[in-house]
Amino acid sequence: MVVYLVGAGPGDPELVTIKAVKLLKEADVVIYDRLANKEILKEAAGAELIYVGKKAGTHYKTQDEINQILIDEGQKHDTVVRLKGGDPFVFGRGGEEMLALLEKGIEVEIVPGVTSAIGVPGTVGLPVTHRGVATSFTVVTGHEDPTKTENQVKWDFNADTIIILMGIGKLEVNVQEIMKYKSPETPVCIIEKGTMPGQRIVTGTLRNITQQDIKPPALVIIGPVVDVYNDIINLKS
Amino acid sequence: MVVYLVGAGPGDPELVTIKAVKLLKEADVVIYDRLANKEILKEAAGAELIYVGKKAGTHYKTQDEINQILIDEGQKHDTVVRLKGGDPFVFGRGGEEMLALLEKGIEVEIVPGVTSAIGVPGTVGLPVTHRGVATSFTVVTGHEDPTKTENQVKWDFNADTIIILMGIGKLEVNVQEIMKYKSPETPVCIIEKGTMPGQRIVTGTLRNITQQDIKPPALVIIGPVVDVYNDIINLKS
Repeated sequence: MVVYLVGAGPGDPELVTIKAVKLLKEADVVIYDRLANKEILKEAAGAELIYVGKKAGTHYKTQDEINQILIDEGQKHDTVVRLKGGDPFVFGRGGEEMLALLEKGIEVEIVPGVTSAIGVPGTVGLPVTHRGVATSFTVVTGHEDPTKTENQVKWDFNADTIIILMGIGKLEVNVQEIMKYKSPETPVCIIEKGTMPGQRIVTGTLRNITQQDIKPPALVIIGPVVDVYNDIINLKS
Repeated sequence: MVVYLVGAGPGDPELVTIKAVKLLKEADVVIYDRLANKEILKEAAGAELIYVGKKAGTHYKTQDEINQILIDEGQKHDTVVRLKGGDPFVFGRGGEEMLALLEKGIEVEIVPGVTSAIGVPGTVGLPVTHRGVATSFTVVTGHEDPTKTENQVKWDFNADTIIILMGIGKLEVNVQEIMKYKSPETPVCIIEKGTMPGQRIVTGTLRNITQQDIKPPALVIIGPVVDVYNDIINLKS
């Protein structure tokens, strides 16, 4: 009777951990959402699969409904895997699911994954830290809680690199906010469909990045490390 | 003739990616440092192993020497794995190694790993983000560049969670700096030897955390998510 909250990584099925694969093979039930690359589910050949994915705006299941499914399955089975894109604790609502399960006396174990925030820029050769360029980075969600009327996030992060997950829907308004604190010439890189087929990379500056046509899912990286990435691209070509 | 810069994860050999294990099995040479758990090297049974680990203060190899080893091995072999603790681009100097290799025309591929910054708190049940509590986190190094005379890092990060890697040597002075911007009652959690045998967890506040006896390697997490962790621990007991 253990529910494992498991990170599935940024999308590439080879960027899943050994432990995640082992648990998928052992699982009685796998509860997954739309962020996880479905290829990964092939490892769970013996398990019942339950889809609880959400779409921005139109919720397929509420978080309370998902928590209840986790509780119900956790009470019935030995090994339940709750598979989440990226890492379960990076905007994955893993903390809420863990609390809901523990309140019902169900054992929970966390299996971290490669977060998209670091792994997606990593695979394209964009280092989120770089000696003499960036000794800190901030990861933030660009997706507002739909029940909130005010912008929760204040954008005066003083880290050298800012990484925005789910940052496309509100990109224009958020970039305006960030320009209150950072130069409009600060370089920006946006990676669509990171580590997956159809990956697309766009670079620019805070001033001009929103003129580009960008579609979610995409990751936004802001700061001088984008210039390091540009150097790397020039060396490759 | 490819050099793979590969993240080995936070320590637990099961938190390595499928791709990392596959590359270790194929590798002609594996170049590793002291942060990687040596258990992981068992996967590289057919490879020559080269240790280039550094100790704080007394450098075993300089970064230039390491870069030269990577270039030499990259020119001689088909598959060279440069294995790094955590993720190669989170204070791993992966960007510098990548640039040095590309300048010599050697192909480089990045294989991201689970960073200790997120994976270590994750495995103990400490979420770095949590709905209504933390919508942003900053990761920063506490280890100063020994060639710099001034403190490079300004600690006025406005993220909800601050995570310090290599943060023990300068903990006292850095906590004093952080208290200029955050309340002394802000909760703090320190995890020694995360995900490995001998793991030890200490909690407190900015005001009193330095009264504890803490030994590196350890990770420092600061912010209200530490209270979520305390709730989780209470539910578990």
